[in-house]
Amino acid sequence: MTTMTKVNVKQQAQLAQKASKELGLLPTGTKNQALLTIADHLEANTAAILAANEKDLANGREAGYDAAYMDRLALDTDRVKDFADGLRQVAKLEDPSGEVTDEWTLDNGLNVQTIRVPLGVIGMIYEARPNVTADATGLALKSGNAIVLKGGSSAINSNRQIVSVMKEALEHTEISSDAVQFIDSTDRQATEELFTMKEHIDVLIPRGGGKLISAVVNNATVPVLETGVGNCHIYIDKDADAKKAFAILVNAKTDRPAVCNAAETVIIHEAFLNAHKDELIETLKENNISVYGDEAACKALPGAEKAEEEQWANEFLSLDIAMKIVSDVDEAISHIDEYGTKHSEAIVTDNEETAKRFKGMVDAAAIYQNASTRFTDGSALGFGAEIGISTQKLHARGPMGLPALTTIKYVMTGDGQIR
Amino acid sequence: MTTMTKVNVKQQAQLAQKASKELGLLPTGTKNQALLTIADHLEANTAAILAANEKDLANGREAGYDAAYMDRLALDTDRVKDFADGLRQVAKLEDPSGEVTDEWTLDNGLNVQTIRVPLGVIGMIYEARPNVTADATGLALKSGNAIVLKGGSSAINSNRQIVSVMKEALEHTEISSDAVQFIDSTDRQATEELFTMKEHIDVLIPRGGGKLISAVVNNATVPVLETGVGNCHIYIDKDADAKKAFAILVNAKTDRPAVCNAAETVIIHEAFLNAHKDELIETLKENNISVYGDEAACKALPGAEKAEEEQWANEFLSLDIAMKIVSDVDEAISHIDEYGTKHSEAIVTDNEETAKRFKGMVDAAAIYQNASTRFTDGSALGFGAEIGISTQKLHARGPMGLPALTTIKYVMTGDGQIR
Repeated sequence: MTTMTKVNVKQQAQLAQKASKELGLLPTGTKNQALLTIADHLEANTAAILAANEKDLANGREAGYDAAYMDRLALDTDRVKDFADGLRQVAKLEDPSGEVTDEWTLDNGLNVQTIRVPLGVIGMIYEARPNVTADATGLALKSGNAIVLKGGSSAINSNRQIVSVMKEALEHTEISSDAVQFIDSTDRQATEELFTMKEHIDVLIPRGGGKLISAVVNNATVPVLETGVGNCHIYIDKDADAKKAFAILVNAKTDRPAVCNAAETVIIHEAFLNAHKDELIETLKENNISVYGDEAACKALPGAEKAEEEQWANEFLSLDIAMKIVSDVDEAISHIDEYGTKHSEAIVTDNEETAKRFKGMVDAAAIYQNASTRFTDGSALGFGAEIGISTQKLHARGPMGLPALTTIKYVMTGDGQIR
Repeated sequence: MTTMTKVNVKQQAQLAQKASKELGLLPTGTKNQALLTIADHLEANTAAILAANEKDLANGREAGYDAAYMDRLALDTDRVKDFADGLRQVAKLEDPSGEVTDEWTLDNGLNVQTIRVPLGVIGMIYEARPNVTADATGLALKSGNAIVLKGGSSAINSNRQIVSVMKEALEHTEISSDAVQFIDSTDRQATEELFTMKEHIDVLIPRGGGKLISAVVNNATVPVLETGVGNCHIYIDKDADAKKAFAILVNAKTDRPAVCNAAETVIIHEAFLNAHKDELIETLKENNISVYGDEAACKALPGAEKAEEEQWANEFLSLDIAMKIVSDVDEAISHIDEYGTKHSEAIVTDNEETAKRFKGMVDAAAIYQNASTRFTDGSALGFGAEIGISTQKLHARGPMGLPALTTIKYVMTGDGQIR
């Protein structure tokens, strides 16, 4: 049974905000030391964390969650070690905060600097995975931000224990334990209170399914860094190299079908289809990929079913794929415009003119020519850890590492300049 | 009489979005040429613009608007020439769009570029000033964005005429006239439709009074670049140079009291007050500044009235100022934390330690040491034109020039890379 705890969300956000002020001024070494201390405490308290996780797993079994969900929820010694190691990794990353990103002097002698500063207080709203609790905290503290954590109800026992260990660890560091706040409630209202707490929370980062993300985007007055839903397309052009095309299609669809940078629709130029139909059928069959197609695709592929509107519009997150046959790149671009979620879109072509048009016209965080969409990922791109993949256009776009958790401040130093 | 026109906001936003796609790919020279053409047409059509403006002015007189409002609304030959010249200035500014802001190659050979791209469609929601119609359009087009304009009802005749001239001018250029959309309605519902049009509008920029801005922030699901309310403070420290302190106070309060970077509260260290009381009284009197103070300020200054909560919290936009006496810099910082609007905050001190703490702890777009807050302004900082001053923390912060109207896109070029 989950214990319902009375929480005072506003008070917690205020504590976080207060802690963020001093945290924002701490030197990098102090923050790194704190992360290492948290990592050690997490590992040392593995047994307690696993015991709490066992309660969540028991509740999950009772609730009849599916295997994939239970897997996301489950912790073991290795997974706890993984998130401790994750914090040690973040301690090694460059600290963006305090960087002077630009500097100039006006004719009147006024010196102008733009300095990277922490956002302040990050509100993290997420679903089942308990590792996000430690990962997000590490990224927030390293970049000088306090964090308010609101995890999914199904992981509340695990999250509570992880936070308790992290806060206890902070008592041994120069970071106030108030910098990490855990909303210990399964009440939806507690989440909704975060949506409008503009006075005390600087940004909300929702991480989870489409429903969670739209609830935050549609109801929040706090600025939102929208993450994640990826209805990604692979367009195989008439000038595609067939070997690359099939390798990319298979990788983007099957490597990890449940993640946001997996492909959900393949768009194929009719000339490519005509030239490589047998190989296409063979490749899909070998890789257990089921097709929901438009008329031309259904005609060409035995066993393909007709795609419904929702199959063009939504992620399958499985070995299913939607398939559209087009007569030119502009038709592919129009389809992506209509159904894409501005995450990752790929073209396979050796025609540079066609590639240029695709790269220019498609509006997405990441555009690929001749590579799998699976590279839209902080670690694959060399950022170290990431707090999510932004699919919105303001500020951080694409995989968000430490710099995405900062903003800038103009700092002007003068000797009495007036206008 | 204002004519109520049936408008189809969604259709207009769709047209803008379609136009933005090709506009985003146009070379800088083509966009500059279009701006110069618009400028020439505006000047050539001054008579028609002034005739339309006369209708707005007549309506305004009938409605009994005050002199300051009528002044913001009024156009004359010089003002029309000013906004034509503004477009010519924007044509000379560097084009941010297309800039490769970063580039690296992964170990597997995948080339990664981050490229600055236009945001897409900008929804501009603003109040009386008709010059915003031309200024915002120039900045949007130069940075490769389409724009949907929703101006204040009181300027609807002027705005309609200005837009009509600009669209006619675009017919002589390579930019589609659909890239500029004017919501020809005084119906509040037309504005509200823009708030949630996420499919077709990429960002909303509200520009006007606090009420307008909060209506947008509280109701929009489209990302908002929040601009402008400036409840700015000048903190005069015990280690302030008195001559600089008074010059900055007078400049920040009186140079243009109605603008957002004017000072609204002065916070004075008690030691400074004690040392310079007579000079302070004299300076305020000479400059016709009325004081609403806390207890200590009222005690020290003859004629000062007690400040109410709303006077600490809101802009006066007049020669009134709120005054608080403090015993250290932290008390000043706490007051700014409570009442500031994250716009521009200044400290006058020759003590570098105190200045460092103020600059580090105060959370605002612009922090000044020994200079007037009046420099928070695109042209004063050397950006050329600005579309507004952002007081939010995501993406663009402070004065927003052309780069603030762009985002980035990751463009990856490979030869078959998969994970």
